[in-house]
Amino acid sequence: MDQRQGTLRDRKRRAVQDEVAGIAVDLFVANGYEAMTVDQIASAAGLSSRSFFRYFASKEAVVTHLFDTTGADIADALAARPADEGPWVALRRAFDGLIEQLTENPQSLALIRMIHETPVLYASHLHKQTRWNEVVAATIAPRLPESLRPDERRLQAGALASAGVACLEYARQEWVARDGEHPMADLVDVAMRAVAPLAGP
Amino acid sequence: MDQRQGTLRDRKRRAVQDEVAGIAVDLFVANGYEAMTVDQIASAAGLSSRSFFRYFASKEAVVTHLFDTTGADIADALAARPADEGPWVALRRAFDGLIEQLTENPQSLALIRMIHETPVLYASHLHKQTRWNEVVAATIAPRLPESLRPDERRLQAGALASAGVACLEYARQEWVARDGEHPMADLVDVAMRAVAPLAGP
Repeated sequence: MDQRQGTLRDRKRRAVQDEVAGIAVDLFVANGYEAMTVDQIASAAGLSSRSFFRYFASKEAVVTHLFDTTGADIADALAARPADEGPWVALRRAFDGLIEQLTENPQSLALIRMIHETPVLYASHLHKQTRWNEVVAATIAPRLPESLRPDERRLQAGALASAGVACLEYARQEWVARDGEHPMADLVDVAMRAVAPLAGP
Repeated sequence: MDQRQGTLRDRKRRAVQDEVAGIAVDLFVANGYEAMTVDQIASAAGLSSRSFFRYFASKEAVVTHLFDTTGADIADALAARPADEGPWVALRRAFDGLIEQLTENPQSLALIRMIHETPVLYASHLHKQTRWNEVVAATIAPRLPESLRPDERRLQAGALASAGVACLEYARQEWVARDGEHPMADLVDVAMRAVAPLAGP
């Protein structure tokens, strides 16, 4: 389901969630994820703890919220690629927006490091990524040969999406391991090219 | 770290963990994961709840325990492949043991379905898989061109391992979605071949 649309009420809710998540990430990065309680986050955001739980099911949901729309964003970018571009290259290009966003946000490095180093967050994040795979797979499917049976096409599209997202994830880890000193875009290129060519159609 | 070795005490501990996990999975498959308490699992295994927590940190750890050695098993199988086999094909062949094991175990289908349908279990499972990536990557690295710089080699090996494991995971989901009626080995072939050729060296 596309998390970016919905009723006015949904959008208002999302605006509050975005704001609370932004405040929470500042606190986490400054003080450590484990050190901050829901009460402290709620209070910094001007909410009661009870209200906090109307917006987020748990403390980790605040962090995974930041990537709620990423799958849909990647799928949109993928749909906008030229129709004759091969699926692997189109997938690589579809990651450009996310890579740029992560690279430009000065908090990304600390945020991603925190996710990787906090088992409950990393596990939730990986779980959320499997949902990106679904939405990205649905957008890759039309790039595969028409001769495929529907079940084969679904499996192939899912495999391409999962493998691409796995390369992105690994390259992002490497970016963090190198303290952001090497461009993430290059690392994603090296990772994806190690698996399959990134040449044109 | 290789979970399969260690002192006599480690091996005894592991034998108890294996037995408790086997009993727990029977109970989960019969009654549902959420329905079973740690007390009930401990009691069925002839342990006090307190003893249970000497062997497992949590209820979900009982399930992830079943895949504790999978990463090392895949890495061993990979190391045993012919040196001139390309990394993607060698990786595919290294999955054969796991695929056979899952296919032959009559509980696999119910177990994997339960993992996929229980967010906390699926998240833990995906987290554990990222550790497979590390150990598998270390075994792929020697198959990559000698001319690579060490950091490039590490990234490429990690990308291949992550992408391969992601294809395996997606194919395994598809196997469950098709109620195990289509051979898992074929589904893994289709998934991996969608990303890169599975031809010989």
